[in-house]
Amino acid sequence: MSTNRQIRLKSRPTGSPTTDNFELAETPLEPAKDGEVVRRTIYLSLDPYMRGRMSDAASYAANVALGAVMCGHTVSQVVESHHPDFRAGDIVTGYDGWQEYGISRGKDLRKLDPSGPPISTALGILGMPGMTAYVGLLDIGQPKPGETVVVSAASGAVGAVVGQLAKIKGCRAVGIAGSAEKCRYVVDELGFDACLNYKTGDLVPGLRAACPNLIDVYFENVGGAIFAAVLKVLNRGARIPLCGMISEYNATSNPGGPNLRSLLVHRAMIRGFIVSDHADRAPAFLQECAPLVMSGRLKFREDIVDGLENAPTAFMGLLEGRNFGKLLVRVSRDPTR
Amino acid sequence: MSTNRQIRLKSRPTGSPTTDNFELAETPLEPAKDGEVVRRTIYLSLDPYMRGRMSDAASYAANVALGAVMCGHTVSQVVESHHPDFRAGDIVTGYDGWQEYGISRGKDLRKLDPSGPPISTALGILGMPGMTAYVGLLDIGQPKPGETVVVSAASGAVGAVVGQLAKIKGCRAVGIAGSAEKCRYVVDELGFDACLNYKTGDLVPGLRAACPNLIDVYFENVGGAIFAAVLKVLNRGARIPLCGMISEYNATSNPGGPNLRSLLVHRAMIRGFIVSDHADRAPAFLQECAPLVMSGRLKFREDIVDGLENAPTAFMGLLEGRNFGKLLVRVSRDPTR
Repeated sequence: MSTNRQIRLKSRPTGSPTTDNFELAETPLEPAKDGEVVRRTIYLSLDPYMRGRMSDAASYAANVALGAVMCGHTVSQVVESHHPDFRAGDIVTGYDGWQEYGISRGKDLRKLDPSGPPISTALGILGMPGMTAYVGLLDIGQPKPGETVVVSAASGAVGAVVGQLAKIKGCRAVGIAGSAEKCRYVVDELGFDACLNYKTGDLVPGLRAACPNLIDVYFENVGGAIFAAVLKVLNRGARIPLCGMISEYNATSNPGGPNLRSLLVHRAMIRGFIVSDHADRAPAFLQECAPLVMSGRLKFREDIVDGLENAPTAFMGLLEGRNFGKLLVRVSRDPTR
Repeated sequence: MSTNRQIRLKSRPTGSPTTDNFELAETPLEPAKDGEVVRRTIYLSLDPYMRGRMSDAASYAANVALGAVMCGHTVSQVVESHHPDFRAGDIVTGYDGWQEYGISRGKDLRKLDPSGPPISTALGILGMPGMTAYVGLLDIGQPKPGETVVVSAASGAVGAVVGQLAKIKGCRAVGIAGSAEKCRYVVDELGFDACLNYKTGDLVPGLRAACPNLIDVYFENVGGAIFAAVLKVLNRGARIPLCGMISEYNATSNPGGPNLRSLLVHRAMIRGFIVSDHADRAPAFLQECAPLVMSGRLKFREDIVDGLENAPTAFMGLLEGRNFGKLLVRVSRDPTR
């Protein structure tokens, strides 16, 4: 235990990472100081978010510096402790990254009970991926019994939990995955109602068939063409927790269209609305705004075109922004002006 | 008043509408029956949503049938009434469409007070466009004092109200419009803090300069390149009420990327989230899910790669979906297995 093997970020990838972006290094293990806990990594979790940490583009967390150890969640065993809360042999989970040993003052560690669930689950179903599924599906997606939940990357660490939780909450669960074997696993082992292989056939008719009542919640892990297909099968009032867009992480050029990864990085929300759904707000609206119009505090400008026969041309101009202010057609004289 | 002039939908447009899509018709005005109200249109409102009603693609409301009168909000004067609630001379607002006279049993009419705000405002700032701004900004966007609100089509019927309401609520209001004259109007007359002309220069640096604290609410009216630019200047937790995407209404081909108009039609919501923001949910998550894992009701599958030195290759495979289940690297022996 006098040397520590580490995998460090050697260079930032352009497109897909290659082995050249990493370097394996050996470094002496510093002796532990008072209050510190030394542990040996048992399991290192590999997760898609790490691709973002390898680039220098802005994201929701600091990037890994060139030459630094790659980050990552770990399950470890304490081998030396100078901290009252930990003793040699304890199993802990932390964030030690891609290395054999981690040292810290223990605030970043959570003890695991070896008689509980398998310790590796602290990195998966009972760790960050499971919690991501839990928060994203239940808090953001808010599925109601009888609704249809679709999840991409359905056999993955997050997707598998999303679909199973959806079933437990009384929903129809439909997965999207990348092989027939994964789809079988998702349906036969995990109990999803259906799973579509996005690599074979057209996803839109497949989704329509698997979701006869349309899609109420789409848990988004992948982006790209799968996302575009799902958008065509949404039910009214659908919710889309945006968790990841793995299909775009290695992209070197903008695939066209708005870059929705910004919504993820900035925890942003887009919500379509139709004013006629909100008719109950009309009294509040008129009560608040009519006096503001009367007092001149809310100003307005009208672009008035005379004659019903001119409506088509005026309308065509509206679609091109040629009007200036609210476009109206004066069909007959206004007796109040 | 024995004939009624109407503009009817003659054919459905491909791309931008042309005058050939409309036809002006004269039709005898049927005599009013008991309970009916006849009114002469004074103002007809022209609004971007009408483009959707001209096509046969699915939208959030029924399309106008071929040969039918084009739909639209109207302000009218009652010329003949066989209904106890209305009398000749009353000013009313309704949905009579592109025609000189409307007849109905009055349930679709709301009386206007000629001594109140100008009657034409019932089609603009105090009508559907104003209410759209009110609901979209306040209920969907939920701006807080001191936040920055950006609105596209800022001099338009909806955008002008959005920015003014934003100022009234204590926000910074920044508009985007299509000419220097419109921008001057938006700032000088409506009181926005700034307005950018999207036809000149690059919008992203303009937005960065006009929004030093980034964008908290973007009221989306236009879609396309403007939407893509705004996505680059979002603040954390931004809200985007999606009201319209006028730049795409005449599109005949998919401009690339997901078609977000689906979010509008289906009143759908996308919300990006990062699990680390929701750490307070960890106890609930573990309390609910750990027993489900222990009992086998929540199943999981692990894809374990041995040896730290294999982490880079395993990670590259993860980004391409080559793993099957939660990907872990076993760095050292698991003493619990």
